[in-house]
Amino acid sequence: MTYAAPVEQIEFILSRVIAYSEVQETDRFAEATQDTTRAILAEAGKLAGQVLAPLNRSGDQVPARLENGRVRASPGYAEGFAAIAEGGWIGLAADPEYGGMGLPMTLNMAVAEMMSGACLALQLNPLLTQGQIEALEHHASEELKALYLPKLNSGEWSGTMNLTEPGAGSDVGALTTRAERHEDGTYRITGQKIFITWGDSDVTSNVCHAVLARLPDGARGTRGISLFMVPKFLPDDQGNPGVANSIKVVSLEEKMGIHGSPTCVMSYEGATGWLIGEEHKGMASMFTMMNCARLGVGVQGVGVAEAALQQAVAYAGERNQMGLIINHPDVRRMLATARAEVFAARSICLACASAIDMQRATGAAEHAARAAFLTPIAKAYGTDVGCRVADTGVQVHGGMGYIEETGAAQYLRDARITPIYEGTNGIQAMDLVGRKLADGGDAAMRLLDEILDNAKAANGAHHDLSERVWQAGETMREATLAMMERDLPERFGGAVPFLMAFARVLGAHYHLRAAMAGSAAHVALARVYISRVLPRYASDLAEARAGLEELTAISDAALAGDFSA
Amino acid sequence: MTYAAPVEQIEFILSRVIAYSEVQETDRFAEATQDTTRAILAEAGKLAGQVLAPLNRSGDQVPARLENGRVRASPGYAEGFAAIAEGGWIGLAADPEYGGMGLPMTLNMAVAEMMSGACLALQLNPLLTQGQIEALEHHASEELKALYLPKLNSGEWSGTMNLTEPGAGSDVGALTTRAERHEDGTYRITGQKIFITWGDSDVTSNVCHAVLARLPDGARGTRGISLFMVPKFLPDDQGNPGVANSIKVVSLEEKMGIHGSPTCVMSYEGATGWLIGEEHKGMASMFTMMNCARLGVGVQGVGVAEAALQQAVAYAGERNQMGLIINHPDVRRMLATARAEVFAARSICLACASAIDMQRATGAAEHAARAAFLTPIAKAYGTDVGCRVADTGVQVHGGMGYIEETGAAQYLRDARITPIYEGTNGIQAMDLVGRKLADGGDAAMRLLDEILDNAKAANGAHHDLSERVWQAGETMREATLAMMERDLPERFGGAVPFLMAFARVLGAHYHLRAAMAGSAAHVALARVYISRVLPRYASDLAEARAGLEELTAISDAALAGDFSA
Repeated sequence: MTYAAPVEQIEFILSRVIAYSEVQETDRFAEATQDTTRAILAEAGKLAGQVLAPLNRSGDQVPARLENGRVRASPGYAEGFAAIAEGGWIGLAADPEYGGMGLPMTLNMAVAEMMSGACLALQLNPLLTQGQIEALEHHASEELKALYLPKLNSGEWSGTMNLTEPGAGSDVGALTTRAERHEDGTYRITGQKIFITWGDSDVTSNVCHAVLARLPDGARGTRGISLFMVPKFLPDDQGNPGVANSIKVVSLEEKMGIHGSPTCVMSYEGATGWLIGEEHKGMASMFTMMNCARLGVGVQGVGVAEAALQQAVAYAGERNQMGLIINHPDVRRMLATARAEVFAARSICLACASAIDMQRATGAAEHAARAAFLTPIAKAYGTDVGCRVADTGVQVHGGMGYIEETGAAQYLRDARITPIYEGTNGIQAMDLVGRKLADGGDAAMRLLDEILDNAKAANGAHHDLSERVWQAGETMREATLAMMERDLPERFGGAVPFLMAFARVLGAHYHLRAAMAGSAAHVALARVYISRVLPRYASDLAEARAGLEELTAISDAALAGDFSA
Repeated sequence: MTYAAPVEQIEFILSRVIAYSEVQETDRFAEATQDTTRAILAEAGKLAGQVLAPLNRSGDQVPARLENGRVRASPGYAEGFAAIAEGGWIGLAADPEYGGMGLPMTLNMAVAEMMSGACLALQLNPLLTQGQIEALEHHASEELKALYLPKLNSGEWSGTMNLTEPGAGSDVGALTTRAERHEDGTYRITGQKIFITWGDSDVTSNVCHAVLARLPDGARGTRGISLFMVPKFLPDDQGNPGVANSIKVVSLEEKMGIHGSPTCVMSYEGATGWLIGEEHKGMASMFTMMNCARLGVGVQGVGVAEAALQQAVAYAGERNQMGLIINHPDVRRMLATARAEVFAARSICLACASAIDMQRATGAAEHAARAAFLTPIAKAYGTDVGCRVADTGVQVHGGMGYIEETGAAQYLRDARITPIYEGTNGIQAMDLVGRKLADGGDAAMRLLDEILDNAKAANGAHHDLSERVWQAGETMREATLAMMERDLPERFGGAVPFLMAFARVLGAHYHLRAAMAGSAAHVALARVYISRVLPRYASDLAEARAGLEELTAISDAALAGDFSA
């Protein structure tokens, strides 16, 4: 099965659905003309379809492995990574002063979607490297930037994020890794980190670890954490990989999917590190990495969904069981719903990326707030759609979907990590109803205003659709106001369904915009979304309204199955 | 992680929620007293928890394999199967004349749930053997019954179902396997079958294949198909396994899950077979096997859901991230919703089994219609809940859920086959809105009448809950009438969401009954279901109402991502 990068679908969303043209009109991103945009998407699409997609199955079948303390990547991955690096794709949105291309994050995310649809396990490496580049650009000293950024941007070296420890997952502040000041201005890092994606490999000549650790005088919790650059090989005087640092890859995890991505247990044993940013302020730098990565993970969901759906449609168009199954009403329902959800999730992710670009180009708080508000929705909805569509792909294949040979199951196994890493979708939802509503609902209301205004504008040609979107937007506004009247634990009990409802309303909004601007096929797809997917926002909100009290009324024993009390 | 069989939960449903007491009052099942019921559940629970559950991980890690043309089962599986056989569990509901115990199907399904929660891959063997026993009891000659049934009931031999061929999955009528009459009254069977669960193994001394094939004068389609008994070893004069039949195990499939269950490609090469039932009427016998197996697969979903949920609750009660995560509102929401869905799915399955028992005990058409109506709902909802709860289990584990070591991912991988085999859930839904409404909606309306009457009866103590169940039942009645006004293709376009809506209303009904009869914990759980899960029936029905026209308006090209037209 060949993956065909969805270049035209993305172009349409950029030019007709979201506010990417605003990004192009800024001074900062003036180079990102329509022609450049188109050329970049086409080029990345070629790379994804022709170079990366053929690596997807082999990485699943021949996982990365640990040999003599070093990770050997899956067959062909070194060549695949080299192709990504040589194309300049890693530094696409990075600062040109250090070898980046300075193009919009929107384009970068579009490219990321295509790469992850082609080969998720490999794409994780550039994704995390980009996160590190972001953190260094914003927080590192000039010296660190000059040394590391060019090599990260070029793909000569790769970057990792080291947050998690056995006792510190979602609770990052519980970490126990220690940092000690050394007289030469460097630090010594000691501790164990787990779930380190691409924590080691032979696809780059150095692996740069961004490691969270606590200095002796660091406060407990997240406020006493610092961030360090801890490279696998210490750079020599020429900035080339020199002496090996005191870092061990303890083991690789055996995972449900993304077998081609080595997930490492790392041990830092008095390893040499350099401070990134200020002492005790590591969480700020980490959040820079994580915000970018969160949107990137949402985009991964969209990428896998696109790939799984393409395969399912192709299969359904060939498989004959009392006629081609693509014509069976229920199979068509599954495929059409999936296609409509992929469009919605992609639009949300790209709209979020454009808000980031506008924030960077203008510095306006309004754009920053929009980006911050959309990020958890993009992450959670994008990854849920990733899993749901991959699941649909398996179902459409029938019994063949359960056989590994077809690859349908791999999409589901691969996608299943995305609602978990970079903050579980539950944490995204808590972020949305907590921090992201802490502005008094300002960002939410501005977004809803746009949705309502657009629905009014569409009221002529698409009366039936716009009416339903307008009603949903109005209900969502009331639900948002009601959510803000609750205390945090109450909000958290309804956070996930609230986020999902918001995502469906947003998805319907972008579908309506597509119907206004696009072809008859866009109108037909909008109709599917608005009549089949959007209505679920009402039951999401019913769940969001149901009280926390109801959940706490159930004992732990009853959850486990003991109803005697 | 230890699986604790949910004996008390099942007992409560049997004694207070569904109409099992009616079954116990019949002459046929008079032996199934409360004491016997309790003793059997306790004994089966012990077997499941102590003997079968320890085999679950090892079967995943060491799959069944093909050696010299014979299948070697996973380590310990032969002993596990022997324990099932020795306990008399295979023939629990079978005819005592041939070595069965003659107990209710309801009890059999309760036992099946516990065995599949403990070790799904192994439990498939007795499940399919029971399906074959059913088919033989109803359709086979006295000679075949006398020869095969005692050995199948005792677990000395096992049974398989051979329907699927490469070009004939859901479309069974497309099969090409040939049968030829032989002068001695036997038949010669030639053809290839795929997806044959437990198609061979070393856990029994013979494997009895029920094979669908077409005689030379058989009509095209399903009406020209006959069913044959084709044993691996031809029974000798004493009825012991003799000469090997001309059957080859071509290969085993590499699957997403249930690794311990050998899924075989079988080749029949002029193999000797005996006719089961009448020539050309094999589909009737096959449906007997399949109906039992369909409910059995729904029950498998419940079993895996229970096991996955137990593990998730245990993990959440130990995992500390800013307090035990079981106390985090969103984790509690996931666990409580899952527990409520497990209760609903289990009740639907056991109610379906009880209707089968009543049909057998009384012969009344009303019970037959009830069983037929509930079977597709039990299969589809049970298996969807199986996947959904296993998925929740992964999510609750966070990053650890993606690591194979914890076993959470295995539940999801194992459960994922259940919405596919024995007729995909899409086919179940088509059966529901097609054949099962062909009685003019009689069976549906009787069921809805019960739901409405019960809601009225509950109106005192549980006014808020009963009101919502009543309303949902009333809406479901209207939706059912509306469904019947459509032609078949229109029905099929909304079949799956219609089935899901019906399942949620049924689930709410059984929760309401539990709230009326049970402890405070049952009331609390009913509240979770009725306020968080039930409301989704409304959006299901919105989707069910959306027209087929909308789906056919989208071109195949647009489904694949090309919107140019």
